[in-house]
Amino acid sequence: MIGAIKEVAELLARLPGVGKRTATRLAFHLLKSNPDYVAQLGYAISTFHERVCDCSVCANISDIDPCEICADPARDNKQICVVESVPDLWAIENSGTFRGKFHVLHGLLSPLDGIGPDDLNLNKLIHRVRNEEVKEVIIAVRPSVEGEATALLLKQTLSSYPIKVTRIASGIPHGSELEYSDSRTLIRALDDRRDMS
Amino acid sequence: MIGAIKEVAELLARLPGVGKRTATRLAFHLLKSNPDYVAQLGYAISTFHERVCDCSVCANISDIDPCEICADPARDNKQICVVESVPDLWAIENSGTFRGKFHVLHGLLSPLDGIGPDDLNLNKLIHRVRNEEVKEVIIAVRPSVEGEATALLLKQTLSSYPIKVTRIASGIPHGSELEYSDSRTLIRALDDRRDMS
Repeated sequence: MIGAIKEVAELLARLPGVGKRTATRLAFHLLKSNPDYVAQLGYAISTFHERVCDCSVCANISDIDPCEICADPARDNKQICVVESVPDLWAIENSGTFRGKFHVLHGLLSPLDGIGPDDLNLNKLIHRVRNEEVKEVIIAVRPSVEGEATALLLKQTLSSYPIKVTRIASGIPHGSELEYSDSRTLIRALDDRRDMS
Repeated sequence: MIGAIKEVAELLARLPGVGKRTATRLAFHLLKSNPDYVAQLGYAISTFHERVCDCSVCANISDIDPCEICADPARDNKQICVVESVPDLWAIENSGTFRGKFHVLHGLLSPLDGIGPDDLNLNKLIHRVRNEEVKEVIIAVRPSVEGEATALLLKQTLSSYPIKVTRIASGIPHGSELEYSDSRTLIRALDDRRDMS
């Protein structure tokens, strides 16, 4: 295998889910592709890290600081939605339902993996609760052991401030069948049942 | 989604087998990866097309012209192995059994797809057969309708030259079971049976 193809294939093979064979196939695909596209892809990747930064307010990944959401005067400062990661932030943002601000923890409590409270982006959240006009913190982390632990930690940490702390609902997902739901989900769905009156 | 991530994800999504979701996941993976690796990957891709060329002798893809195989004085000039593509060339090269030269057609005859004899790298093969000390042309294209048509075309094209034209064997692959072989493969295996005496 010649140098240039080998090099590109070996670098691509370090991506998750890309094996040696796929990497070689992709390298050949790039060779056959429009040279402009290939140069553009390469440039976009090589300058990727330089072009993004963490938002100094909410830790969202952004081109600008503060990020577009934090800088948007139309967004509601009274609600902060706390998420584990930037993809989670985007998922909520894409649902189009939330018009408040975000705060990214960049992780969840996980003592087994050595991730403690100090590894989460908590201090800035407390700073925001103290100094901004926050009325509610919505904990939007996934329902798992780590998610529950993180939610509990947040609730305790924020208990001394005069704000509401809420947690997004867990239950049967929209369009799915009860028959195939796992029992933990069913227990949560029953526990969190809502009064319909 | 912010500009830089969106751009990288959209460019990655144009690769074969990479959907929108995978592309976004890969973009985030790149953001979390070692910046040196990401810059190196980007540079390797952006300069990829500039760094490779087609070998003017055999049409192999190479860093140099003629390619390493054509330039290697230890390789046997008497045998030319004709392949469809560069990955096929590598597959044979990696088997370590062939010490002759190669010739890459960059395609197979396929009238339905509009690929005729003029679209294959044939003229240079004839030139080599005429001007080099070639004794045998081994047709190593896959056993398929297009492969058979291409093999027939090559045989006819080369029939006026005093050389041997051979075709690699088709049959039951090593380690596979007769029970699960398709009937075309079994027919070929029976037709191409060898005298063991």
